[in-house]
Amino acid sequence: MESKLRKLGFEGIGNLKTPPPSYSIKSVVKFLKENINEDDHRLAISLGVGDPSGFKCFRTTNIAEDAIVGAVRSAKFNSYAPTGGILSARRAIAEYLSNDLPYQLSPEDVYVTLGCKHAMEMIVKVLARPEANILLPRPGFRIYETYANSHHLELRHFDLLPQKGWEVDLDAVEAIADENTIAMVIINPGNPCGSVYSYEHLSKIAETARKLGILVVADEVYGHIVFGSKPFVPMGVFGSTVPVITLGSISKRWMVPGWRLGWLVTSDPTGLLQICGIADSIKSALNPAPFSPTFIQAAVPEILEKTTEEFFSKTINILRAASAFCYDKLKEIPCITCPQRAEGAMFVLVKLNLSLLEDIEDDMEFCLKLAKEESLVILPGVTVGLKNWLRITFSVEQSYLEDGLGRLRSFCGRHAKKP
Amino acid sequence: MESKLRKLGFEGIGNLKTPPPSYSIKSVVKFLKENINEDDHRLAISLGVGDPSGFKCFRTTNIAEDAIVGAVRSAKFNSYAPTGGILSARRAIAEYLSNDLPYQLSPEDVYVTLGCKHAMEMIVKVLARPEANILLPRPGFRIYETYANSHHLELRHFDLLPQKGWEVDLDAVEAIADENTIAMVIINPGNPCGSVYSYEHLSKIAETARKLGILVVADEVYGHIVFGSKPFVPMGVFGSTVPVITLGSISKRWMVPGWRLGWLVTSDPTGLLQICGIADSIKSALNPAPFSPTFIQAAVPEILEKTTEEFFSKTINILRAASAFCYDKLKEIPCITCPQRAEGAMFVLVKLNLSLLEDIEDDMEFCLKLAKEESLVILPGVTVGLKNWLRITFSVEQSYLEDGLGRLRSFCGRHAKKP
Repeated sequence: MESKLRKLGFEGIGNLKTPPPSYSIKSVVKFLKENINEDDHRLAISLGVGDPSGFKCFRTTNIAEDAIVGAVRSAKFNSYAPTGGILSARRAIAEYLSNDLPYQLSPEDVYVTLGCKHAMEMIVKVLARPEANILLPRPGFRIYETYANSHHLELRHFDLLPQKGWEVDLDAVEAIADENTIAMVIINPGNPCGSVYSYEHLSKIAETARKLGILVVADEVYGHIVFGSKPFVPMGVFGSTVPVITLGSISKRWMVPGWRLGWLVTSDPTGLLQICGIADSIKSALNPAPFSPTFIQAAVPEILEKTTEEFFSKTINILRAASAFCYDKLKEIPCITCPQRAEGAMFVLVKLNLSLLEDIEDDMEFCLKLAKEESLVILPGVTVGLKNWLRITFSVEQSYLEDGLGRLRSFCGRHAKKP
Repeated sequence: MESKLRKLGFEGIGNLKTPPPSYSIKSVVKFLKENINEDDHRLAISLGVGDPSGFKCFRTTNIAEDAIVGAVRSAKFNSYAPTGGILSARRAIAEYLSNDLPYQLSPEDVYVTLGCKHAMEMIVKVLARPEANILLPRPGFRIYETYANSHHLELRHFDLLPQKGWEVDLDAVEAIADENTIAMVIINPGNPCGSVYSYEHLSKIAETARKLGILVVADEVYGHIVFGSKPFVPMGVFGSTVPVITLGSISKRWMVPGWRLGWLVTSDPTGLLQICGIADSIKSALNPAPFSPTFIQAAVPEILEKTTEEFFSKTINILRAASAFCYDKLKEIPCITCPQRAEGAMFVLVKLNLSLLEDIEDDMEFCLKLAKEESLVILPGVTVGLKNWLRITFSVEQSYLEDGLGRLRSFCGRHAKKP
């Protein structure tokens, strides 16, 4: 049997059908963690991923826990859920998002997904066409590329501009789009940049997309996680200018990424996505596909409607302070340049000045040595499309962040070129 | 923009990238339900799907509810889960399945999935190769075909033999297998047949697969749901003869299909799947992919270890009585032949004798008229690969089943050819 399996292409470890996503955030963080020195008796610190749910100060609201417990105890939601989600969840998500829009979404605009990643995969699957291409931001969230590759959708990158608060380089968008471009993706608030786009910038993005005849996929998984001067404006506000597909979830605002409850929403008051059959394609992509457990869906109305402003503002205040602390501490490190203080999401993206370091060749080596010497994990920029940058997560407890940034500073000092 | 979208292949409703799975159980049941006469004031009855969780007598155990509630309340499981599942869940599933095996599974043999359907899709994705083919039972569970089509894995059918308790026609398996056959699928206890395979028959399946050099994918989502003379024997018992990939979930035995907690397990004491890289391919297929919510995974050890025999036997007793009742009532209907009483799962598959009916051409028309005239939904055999048969679900409350079978009898009487 072994020889037969080999003949059919199963040829042992490493010879996989899908290449391992070696530069995925998950695999790089795992690799770095495995390189932490076991003899270092200090606590290992990870500023590598955007999952604050393990810290006490970021514990989710009891409203959310109660909603899940209530749904389980009712025993009314043990059955299969219909494709697209149960009506009460779809309606609640439509209401929640409509609060920030100049028009009303209907439950039929909403598809419940297994978190935002699942929504990303579904929209990539829906948009994939033999000739089509999609425009992605650089730096960006690499998983879009994984999905585009696996669904055979050509991808092209436009730059985000660090000197302009990581705004989209709209000239670049116009330069790379062609008649086969189906959509552009924006991530706002920004991962990995910590940026928040102004109303004016989003309006320009909408005008550009309209001019090019392309849809906008708005990844708003960090929606409402803003703590600078700019408010969060959902891209759907410009839905009359250009059809928007909004992706989101409760993962970040409620600090429950493990609950896997997200959405894919057609923010499209003109109904173009319906006319062109994209709405039907979404339904088709979701069936058969895994769906969010029915009782978690059933908890959504209570979670979205009853969570208090107090819970949200507590989280935002912690993140604001953490972002400011992080910015101040990073400014003290000569080999690191921080283009701007993060105003949203949970990250800051900073530039490494390798010419000031004596024995480090690139961001990956920097992070590897950092893990080995300081038991500190941060993410090399290469995983988000920007070589020799670093993505630092600050959505952690204060003392943990302080300790981590202290180690980063020692490390940089130790490796600095001697004058 | 509309013209551009059309040019890229988005051409309105019905013109989908993936053809709608028109004969999927879900879509056919939906279609039939939509045809129920609104003026019929009787309760609509569905004996169409295998989801008893809405009936009081099939309410899940409070052990399972408590386990979920405990995991949510602990706030320890709000984070992302690792690929393949959290260790405690993998270990508990390995222990649970090892109870019925002559060897010990390890947590590394277990991959937690979003229910059994997700496990099916993952194994089809893993096994898909440009030249490869997979053997599927007919009648069978259609969703395997959907997955095989979407992952470009050629499929071939072997028959199950109604006169032999729906056993696999092993001569047919040998006839259709070739050097590109990678695996055969068996479903035991059987959907849609309600069959349970003996130790001897499973042993013959293993020998045949070994001789042909193919893996066995054993869909055991109805594992332990047996109420006839034969015990449930997992295919993994023959793992030393042939590598087995076992698929299962808590959906059916615990009556919680909406919880989406399943598994894909390599029951392979010889380690061949490891050597050939199939184990790595499974990991690769699962990353990035949606995963079962972390707190549901965290509840698995308690659910598997603490559920009492009393809960299981209560369910089995209800199903045994329902199966017998169903068999007796069906025997009274002249145009229906029931090859055998169901001994497992939740269904019985019966043959329509159309020559005894005067105005019905096939099983689909039978079910459509039945829905219209009697507000009763049962599944036409064409959806499970056997035209002019019917799949009847008996995992419902007694009075509901009685009412449903009464309506079926009236319907058949009304449409019988006059002598």
